[in-house]
Amino acid sequence: MPTVKPVSYENAPPAVRAVYDDIKATRKVDWINNFWTTIANHPPTLKRTWESVKEVMAPGALDPLVKEMIYLAISASNNCEYCIRSHTAAARKAGMTEAMLGELMAVVGMANETNRLANGYQVEVDERFKQTP
Amino acid sequence: MPTVKPVSYENAPPAVRAVYDDIKATRKVDWINNFWTTIANHPPTLKRTWESVKEVMAPGALDPLVKEMIYLAISASNNCEYCIRSHTAAARKAGMTEAMLGELMAVVGMANETNRLANGYQVEVDERFKQTP
Amino acid sequence: MPTVKPVSYENAPPAVRAVYDDIKATRKVDWINNFWTTIANHPPTLKRTWESVKEVMAPGALDPLVKEMIYLAISASNNCEYCIRSHTAAARKAGMTEAMLGELMAVVGMANETNRLANGYQVEVDERFKQTP
Amino acid sequence: MPTVKPVSYENAPPAVRAVYDDIKATRKVDWINNFWTTIANHPPTLKRTWESVKEVMAPGALDPLVKEMIYLAISASNNCEYCIRSHTAAARKAGMTEAMLGELMAVVGMANETNRLANGYQVEVDERFKQTP
Amino acid sequence: MPTVKPVSYENAPPAVRAVYDDIKATRKVDWINNFWTTIANHPPTLKRTWESVKEVMAPGALDPLVKEMIYLAISASNNCEYCIRSHTAAARKAGMTEAMLGELMAVVGMANETNRLANGYQVEVDERFKQTP
Amino acid sequence: MPTVKPVSYENAPPAVRAVYDDIKATRKVDWINNFWTTIANHPPTLKRTWESVKEVMAPGALDPLVKEMIYLAISASNNCEYCIRSHTAAARKAGMTEAMLGELMAVVGMANETNRLANGYQVEVDERFKQTP
Repeated sequence: MPTVKPVSYENAPPAVRAVYDDIKATRKVDWINNFWTTIANHPPTLKRTWESVKEVMAPGALDPLVKEMIYLAISASNNCEYCIRSHTAAARKAGMTEAMLGELMAVVGMANETNRLANGYQVEVDERFKQTP
Repeated sequence: MPTVKPVSYENAPPAVRAVYDDIKATRKVDWINNFWTTIANHPPTLKRTWESVKEVMAPGALDPLVKEMIYLAISASNNCEYCIRSHTAAARKAGMTEAMLGELMAVVGMANETNRLANGYQVEVDERFKQTP
Repeated sequence: MPTVKPVSYENAPPAVRAVYDDIKATRKVDWINNFWTTIANHPPTLKRTWESVKEVMAPGALDPLVKEMIYLAISASNNCEYCIRSHTAAARKAGMTEAMLGELMAVVGMANETNRLANGYQVEVDERFKQTP
Repeated sequence: MPTVKPVSYENAPPAVRAVYDDIKATRKVDWINNFWTTIANHPPTLKRTWESVKEVMAPGALDPLVKEMIYLAISASNNCEYCIRSHTAAARKAGMTEAMLGELMAVVGMANETNRLANGYQVEVDERFKQTP
Repeated sequence: MPTVKPVSYENAPPAVRAVYDDIKATRKVDWINNFWTTIANHPPTLKRTWESVKEVMAPGALDPLVKEMIYLAISASNNCEYCIRSHTAAARKAGMTEAMLGELMAVVGMANETNRLANGYQVEVDERFKQTP
Repeated sequence: MPTVKPVSYENAPPAVRAVYDDIKATRKVDWINNFWTTIANHPPTLKRTWESVKEVMAPGALDPLVKEMIYLAISASNNCEYCIRSHTAAARKAGMTEAMLGELMAVVGMANETNRLANGYQVEVDERFKQTP
């Protein structure tokens, strides 16, 4: 159980329902997942977060599947169960195969390993890596 | 300065030099960056880490640029300066444009925000997200 | 189930029971929550941690509600479920309204987002921010 | 040096300059700190982040000083140097005394300690803490 | 339920089964724990990870019990439930007593506290601590 | 430069000087490192932290070198530069050889890698690992 009561579509005040409707239309789904119904307890956070996510995850210089896999990689590093499960589902829906998931997790593990080796030895940054292009 | 003295190519024992040579050949570069010369203080860690990185970052179901961007996204989340700088350089070399970097960082920020909202409210995992395909 | 067996009030050795009695008296409660009964497996850690928490969380230059909300903000960032749930309860008991919780979580999310942008781009610290007053 | 070149006020395109002007007007300052000039490399991220920060940090159910201290507490937990230094300055400007800073850091330290004890022993969440009010 | 279906011994392809057999032989156990059956979905990750763990955790300059306790300390700091539970079990099997576990967790808590005090105040590194021996 | 001005021995009020004297006597050193002079800005935090560290790091069921190495492993995982450098120095003083440091860092890297694989795939905890002895 979350620490606040989720806001169902039926009980949502108009401002919240408007966001729910936009989520359904944008994602072409007929239900609202718990992340949104839970943060809806603070309507300004719901509205701001949804609009930000919609903007950030839209197609652009990176394709949506790559964005979903980056989201999943960070969620795995942060150990956010909700985020891992919801973005694994979203990435699969966007085309991630099981082989792609396997390689993604391999990179997640390796990056976390070498990050700690670099930190642990306090590896000095090479001059060449300090240059801005 | 790192906490151990880096091992230069000139002073490297044969087992370390062999790894350095393989790094140069694989990456088609003529220098060895500090990460490798520093962890070379423990030769088994140098060898194992290099072989693992070489395997994980090779082209496969994901292309090398996507892998570099995932590595960078995790390094930014973990705040490993060395890793952020070296993988920003590597991703640019692999073709990342400034617009791609901008979108990548937008996803990094957004994922770290929503991860904490999901955790902070202890959002319950939807039943549909618990299914394995 | 925790990795060690909790120490109930009934089975507690005198040194542990003395801490339990002080928790009950200080907090004006008639039960001991699982955090304390679990860490009681190592009595010096129970005693030291309780005395530290009692000192740190007492009214001072910051009021207790503010301290509870800071505790909750950190627990949400660290994704410690036990800590999120117990400090959400404690902050509510100390007077946190649902609107305050909503704003608190909004700050938690935003801080985690901008922390990663600052790290990810390796933003340089402005000279003015390096001064000690 | 950051990984991208900061965008000075003089060289800023109109959309970026408009955000800079709003930052100056809202905060009643005559300079733009490096965080904003650096993320300005990706103008949509600059605009979205500034508008979000402005909304989240405005006075509401929590007063601005409390919000700044929560921001600082999270930045200290995440070890983001830029964020620690800029939000220590901002909190002082908003009225944080040295005694308040001392107590804030004491809470930060203690929360990070007990978060790990709760996790390390896998303390079970008490039934009472699972209730939503 | 994990996000991918575990690979049982019976259904394992030969390359996976060979790793399972080596795990059983090396650890002198007659079952394979879920970590391995889950990551077996990506056979190269299974093989590389097992060979790395086997090499890293073997007796050397540090004894195996010390290595297990270091693994547990990191897992508690990272809040990885699976890792905390499996390495608490492994450390006990390697000889960790309840008193040792109590002291280990006390160090884990204290290190996480002082790490945040050092970061939060941006304590300057003493010159003597910058020297490499 | 830290965010607060360090308190030198000469300018220390009696309560702070008493802690400094105890640090010198306990550790048999003739100087006080920056961690203590910085946190001395909040004397109760100085006193409480020093007494806790002294108690936690004293010889007990674990020997002092093992405790120092655990402290270092956590500091490397958390990327606290001050803590990494001071505890690398302390562990060397307590007898850590370069080979031991190499193996320690190998465990640090590996634990951080497998922690993320366990999280990323949401590996299910085996029933046997849920038992308390």
